[in-house]
Amino acid sequence: MLDPVKVGVLGLGTVGGGTVGVLQGNAEEIARRAGRGITVTHACAREIKQANFNLDAITLTQDLTDIITNPDIDIVVELIGGTTLAKDVTLQAIENGKHVVTANKALIAKHGNEIFQAAQEKGVMVAFEAAVAGGIPVIKAVREGLSANKINWLAGIINGTGNFILTEMRDNGSAFADVLKEAQDLGYAEADPTFDIEGVDAAHKLAILASIAFGIPLQFDKVYMEGITKITIDDVTYAEELGYRIKHLGIAKRSDKGVEMRVHPTLVPAEQLLANVNGVMNAVMVNGDAIGDTLFYGAGAGAQPTASAVVADIVDVVRTLTADPENRVPHLAFQPNALADTNILPIEEVETAYYLRMDATDKVGVLAEVTRVLSENAISIEAIIQKEPAAGASHLPIVLLTHKVSEASMNAAIVAIENLDGINGNVMRMRVESLAG
Amino acid sequence: MLDPVKVGVLGLGTVGGGTVGVLQGNAEEIARRAGRGITVTHACAREIKQANFNLDAITLTQDLTDIITNPDIDIVVELIGGTTLAKDVTLQAIENGKHVVTANKALIAKHGNEIFQAAQEKGVMVAFEAAVAGGIPVIKAVREGLSANKINWLAGIINGTGNFILTEMRDNGSAFADVLKEAQDLGYAEADPTFDIEGVDAAHKLAILASIAFGIPLQFDKVYMEGITKITIDDVTYAEELGYRIKHLGIAKRSDKGVEMRVHPTLVPAEQLLANVNGVMNAVMVNGDAIGDTLFYGAGAGAQPTASAVVADIVDVVRTLTADPENRVPHLAFQPNALADTNILPIEEVETAYYLRMDATDKVGVLAEVTRVLSENAISIEAIIQKEPAAGASHLPIVLLTHKVSEASMNAAIVAIENLDGINGNVMRMRVESLAG
Repeated sequence: MLDPVKVGVLGLGTVGGGTVGVLQGNAEEIARRAGRGITVTHACAREIKQANFNLDAITLTQDLTDIITNPDIDIVVELIGGTTLAKDVTLQAIENGKHVVTANKALIAKHGNEIFQAAQEKGVMVAFEAAVAGGIPVIKAVREGLSANKINWLAGIINGTGNFILTEMRDNGSAFADVLKEAQDLGYAEADPTFDIEGVDAAHKLAILASIAFGIPLQFDKVYMEGITKITIDDVTYAEELGYRIKHLGIAKRSDKGVEMRVHPTLVPAEQLLANVNGVMNAVMVNGDAIGDTLFYGAGAGAQPTASAVVADIVDVVRTLTADPENRVPHLAFQPNALADTNILPIEEVETAYYLRMDATDKVGVLAEVTRVLSENAISIEAIIQKEPAAGASHLPIVLLTHKVSEASMNAAIVAIENLDGINGNVMRMRVESLAG
Repeated sequence: MLDPVKVGVLGLGTVGGGTVGVLQGNAEEIARRAGRGITVTHACAREIKQANFNLDAITLTQDLTDIITNPDIDIVVELIGGTTLAKDVTLQAIENGKHVVTANKALIAKHGNEIFQAAQEKGVMVAFEAAVAGGIPVIKAVREGLSANKINWLAGIINGTGNFILTEMRDNGSAFADVLKEAQDLGYAEADPTFDIEGVDAAHKLAILASIAFGIPLQFDKVYMEGITKITIDDVTYAEELGYRIKHLGIAKRSDKGVEMRVHPTLVPAEQLLANVNGVMNAVMVNGDAIGDTLFYGAGAGAQPTASAVVADIVDVVRTLTADPENRVPHLAFQPNALADTNILPIEEVETAYYLRMDATDKVGVLAEVTRVLSENAISIEAIIQKEPAAGASHLPIVLLTHKVSEASMNAAIVAIENLDGINGNVMRMRVESLAG
């Protein structure tokens, strides 16, 4: 057997500790697969809280440079997070001829184009399976498993915190703010939950998935983002009555007009698999022209699941070490000189069906006014729920499902509806996707 | 760009035609991924019915030898089916230094060990993603995507015909024989449906999955098989009442005692994703020690989905051409010299929970007798359904769910129950799996 491959790990937090633990715990099984041992020889960490792995054989340092310049190290695992230091370190590691494995979605989404070009020039690999949907090998599935297909679209639950919140709201009828607090107590959500609940984290992942699906450069800044903070229990209930569940989806779709990339709350038909992915679990549905619909499900976060993807990447790098660089799997699935300059559709031109909820004064003719406005904007109605007002109340909710319409038309209609006399406050709107292949 | 890779296709039936069609239809996209063109230059077929692809550039022959000995051809795609001629042709292609891609599950399950050894000696690749679960890249997922994990178990709906039949029985209350007829009319089932409904096809696929999951040689002859022909509408209804759905699963599980490989009808909790995989769709759930539960879903058969997997394999072979043979992904996930001689558990030693249905004479004490027999065999009861007999009837069904027990104990109990005075005919029994991670 060949000598073990030497790995240096930058960052021994949750994922870093998990990665070393999995490499050590399953060392025998992994070596039987990879054909050689894989040993963590060096690690960089400011402090080690409680290690659930053996530190004896690992040289610890507080200086990242010790690792990225060490001539004995073959593979650098970047797990320090953020996009400033992480970017510098990654580029330096590449410059020093190291292969890099990272779980850093923000880094890849924002600086991947630059990082991959540097790697290409040096002939080293950069692997990032753990950056999207944690342990689910979805990058591999899209980039390699579906390489025969023209990918038409993909839609994913790619933020576990958001999915946990929506699942709890539905299962227990709890309000958004209460469940967010619960998620924070359980450690599912950060103290500053913005990235999760406003869709930034999902947008990072979606930008990566869209690139490898469609053969376009990474374009995080063109992803449309909408969070889950405005969803009320009423919305959850009405969606259910209409036969849907609310999921926070990242959707990338290719049409003749261009590529759509958008993250937003979405009504999904209740009987579909994606609607039944609950709690912190993730899933990505992919539709290709040959395979049709396919779905990949698993844990999207956590020390062990994320380590599963990091270590799989390390094994992949080991297995590919002797291949000519131009014969390796390209970072973004397509060869770097074959990426397409496809138009990214502005959200105003995207067409979807809509769920609308509004608060109406209980008087004759309000619903007729609303439907007149929709009709004037060429929006047709699929379903209406109108409840009797509660005893003594003078307001009642109107809930509508529309057929497909452009975002621009819907925006115009909503402005007009909000200006109607009998309508109070803002219209709540969410997009509806049937996800049919 | 490098010269196109030249492919020879053996067999232009459903999958062969689909493969050529996908390679031609998505040629530009595939070349952008693979870094070079992939061209079908030769094909062998007895007759071509209606080609949905361009035959002009393809040299047709009726002699397989023309292709497997042709020095211009890099990759041979074996799609002739069967295990006799297909085995000879595959071994000869390998002997001639060709890489081989096949969709032939029976061939790999029965002769894979021999074929892989021959390929190893010649330094060529044999790829077989299409042999399991059609277009779903589940071989890749388990072999590469989950390479960090000790796989604990996997459970799959890996025969679309069987799943279609069970779905129709549940949705429409149709009897098994009627749905089988319908499946045959729709082209989902063969004129001789034995391989599908008796579990042979699923057993082929399970043997392959178990090998790559656990690092053991292919052992098709040790897979326990039970078909779906005895399932009645009553069973479907009772399972539903108990909170389960009946699925025909292939299950491979590793325990301290050894490896289980079994294909049989199984009661699965109704809320689980696997229970909601309907119609001809396939899905494989995999539990690894790091990733936990994960699931891969998609079309398990059909020209286009199967071609999706065949072509992905061709792209993989192209991408790996320049890697040292010992650095490529091993055929069975683990290096050939690292396969384990793990004990395969005989079915008598396997422990599961059971669903039992029996026909009882409507008289006092029958149920007590049944529970006495179970108790004597140390089998405890989880749930009982006992209906009133229909008006005027003297028989009634007794339905039971048990806790976990060894197959041997259950066999003994069933013999004793069938000998009871108040029990008529045979006891229907199905295994219950909670599939909890």
